[in-house]
Amino acid sequence: MDLGGTNLRGALLCGDANELGVRHQKKRPTERRRGSEAVLEHLIALVRELVEREGLTLDAVEGVGIATPGPLDVSRETITSAPNFPDWKDFPLKRRVEDALGTRVWLENDANAAALGEYRMGAGRGSRSLVFLGLGTGVGGGVVLDGRIVRGAHGVGGELGHIQLGRDGPVCGCGNRGCLEQLASATAVTRMARESVAAGRPSVLADAGTFEARDVFDAARGGDALANEIVEEMSRSLGLGIVSLIHTLDPEVVVIGGGLAESADLFLDRVRAFVDEHVFPAARGKVRITRAELGDDAGILGAAFQVFESSRGGSRDR
Amino acid sequence: MDLGGTNLRGALLCGDANELGVRHQKKRPTERRRGSEAVLEHLIALVRELVEREGLTLDAVEGVGIATPGPLDVSRETITSAPNFPDWKDFPLKRRVEDALGTRVWLENDANAAALGEYRMGAGRGSRSLVFLGLGTGVGGGVVLDGRIVRGAHGVGGELGHIQLGRDGPVCGCGNRGCLEQLASATAVTRMARESVAAGRPSVLADAGTFEARDVFDAARGGDALANEIVEEMSRSLGLGIVSLIHTLDPEVVVIGGGLAESADLFLDRVRAFVDEHVFPAARGKVRITRAELGDDAGILGAAFQVFESSRGGSRDR
Repeated sequence: MDLGGTNLRGALLCGDANELGVRHQKKRPTERRRGSEAVLEHLIALVRELVEREGLTLDAVEGVGIATPGPLDVSRETITSAPNFPDWKDFPLKRRVEDALGTRVWLENDANAAALGEYRMGAGRGSRSLVFLGLGTGVGGGVVLDGRIVRGAHGVGGELGHIQLGRDGPVCGCGNRGCLEQLASATAVTRMARESVAAGRPSVLADAGTFEARDVFDAARGGDALANEIVEEMSRSLGLGIVSLIHTLDPEVVVIGGGLAESADLFLDRVRAFVDEHVFPAARGKVRITRAELGDDAGILGAAFQVFESSRGGSRDR
Repeated sequence: MDLGGTNLRGALLCGDANELGVRHQKKRPTERRRGSEAVLEHLIALVRELVEREGLTLDAVEGVGIATPGPLDVSRETITSAPNFPDWKDFPLKRRVEDALGTRVWLENDANAAALGEYRMGAGRGSRSLVFLGLGTGVGGGVVLDGRIVRGAHGVGGELGHIQLGRDGPVCGCGNRGCLEQLASATAVTRMARESVAAGRPSVLADAGTFEARDVFDAARGGDALANEIVEEMSRSLGLGIVSLIHTLDPEVVVIGGGLAESADLFLDRVRAFVDEHVFPAARGKVRITRAELGDDAGILGAAFQVFESSRGGSRDR
C-alpha cells in the first residue's frame, strides 16, 4: 500500500525477495480530510478487495507493506509526524492494521520505500548502493547500501531534504535555513520565480499571473531567460547536495524521482556537470545520476520488498 | 602501521576481531622528504623489528595493516594521491610491502582506520553506527555502519572534510569553496584569526605575532573576545556539517578526533547545542557527540582490526 496525500494506492504482488510481479492494482482518493479513521477504513477495505479479487484469503498473504508519509518511530509502528496528515501524528498505524486484518504489517517511510523499489527493480537495479532524491513539494530521500535501507539510530537517516547547503536561505518547515528542500523542490522553483517576477524581471511567467513549477520548466524549455536562470540555480543546489552525498556515501547511483523528475531533461545534464566539476577525481564521471524509472510505483514496490525481506531470512533492518 | 606525515608508527597486536591488545609499539620520524623508497624501507624494517622483538617470524603474522594518508584506489592497493606525500601518487604500496615481507597487507585510509579503531575500542565501543571527524590541518572523516567502513563505490565515501556547507568561502585544496575542511579545521581557525587581526581587531593574538590554532584556543580560554568568536564560528560550521550527517546517516555516535580534539572542552558543548537546535526532533539530544578516546592509536588499531576482519570470516568490505 502507498498512503499518499492525494491517492491511496494498493497492489497485490507475487514473487520473492529478488523480483516481484504486480497482480492487481487499485487506486482511490485518500480523502484525508475525512480524518485518520476514515482513511484507515479505506485502506483496510482496499487490502481485502485486492486479496479477494485474487481468489485468496488473508491468511495466504505474507504481509502488508505500507509506504507512509512522514517519519516513523524507530520501531516503525507509529507515524511520528506527517505534515499532510496532521491528525495522524503518533497514530499507531501498524497495530491498527494488524488488528483489523490479522496479518503482519510493515511500515516504511515513503521515500525510503521508493529508494528500495528503485534499488531492486528500477534505476538502481544491479547496483550495490543507491541514493534516492524525490523532488516534489518537498524533497524526500532514501539511502540503500547493500540492499538495506539506512534508517539510522533514531529514524532520521535518509532525510536528505534536510542536508544543509548553508546557514542562510528561506526558512524550511523543519525550522532550519539552508535545507536542500528549500532550494531544489517544486516549492523552491515556484518561490524563486515568484520573487523574480515580483521584482520586475521580464518573463513569460510575469504574464501568466499564477504558475507552478511545471510552468517554470515549460517557460525554460521555450527559451525564457528568467526561467532558465531558475532551472540553473536549482540544478546547482541539487548538484551541491549530491556532491556532499558522494563525499559521504559515494553510491553507485543517484536516482532523481518525484514530480520534478518529469522535467529531468531540463536539469539532469546541468546537475551532472556541476557534480563532475566539484567531486573528487576518483568519482568524477563515475557516479550514475539518473532519473527514476518506477514513477508512482516505486513506493508500493519498496513497501512490498520490505515485507518479503523482513519475513524471510531474518531481519535485514539497520 | 600508521604512515603519518610526521611519524611512522608501528605496533604488534594480538587478539581477535573483537578485542586487540598492543604488545609492542614503536615510533620513528617518517622522514618523508627522503622520498617514498626510503620511507618504504623504514616501514619494512619497523615491521621486522616488531616481529623479532616478540620472538616471532613473519609467517606467524596474520597480516600487516597500514593506515595511509590520502585516498586509496577502490581495490585499496595504491595511494591515488596524498597531499603530504607528493611522490607517493599512484604508489603500489600494498604490492611493494607484500613482496618485501611475504605477508598479506591491507591498506586503509587513515581517517577510515581511525573511525574503525574508535568504533571497536574507543568512543564508539558498543554502538552500531559511528561518524568520525578528525580535525587537524584538514578534516578527515570515516563512517562505520554495522562494523563496516563505508568506503563507497569509488573510494571517496567518508571524505567528510569535503561535504559542502555553502557555495562560497575559502578555496579548498580540492578546488571547491564551502568544504567543511575550510571552516572547521586548525587551518580554518588560524586563517580566521589572522584575517581578523589583519583587519585590526584587538586581541591578545595581535600581540603574539605568529600563532597557531592552539594559541587561538588558549586565547579563548583566557577570555579573549576575538578568539572566542572564532571558536563559536568554527563550532557552528562543525555543527552544520554534523546536522547534514545526521539527516543522512543518523549514527548513534559522532566522534571528534584529530589535534583540535585536545581543545574539545572549548567547543564540544557549543557543537552539541547547535546540533540540538537544528536536527529533527526524533534525534534531538540522542546522537552522542563526543571526543575520540584513542588519540594517535586509533589509526593503528583500526588498521589492525581491518587485518583480523578481512582475513577471518570472509571479506566484510563494502
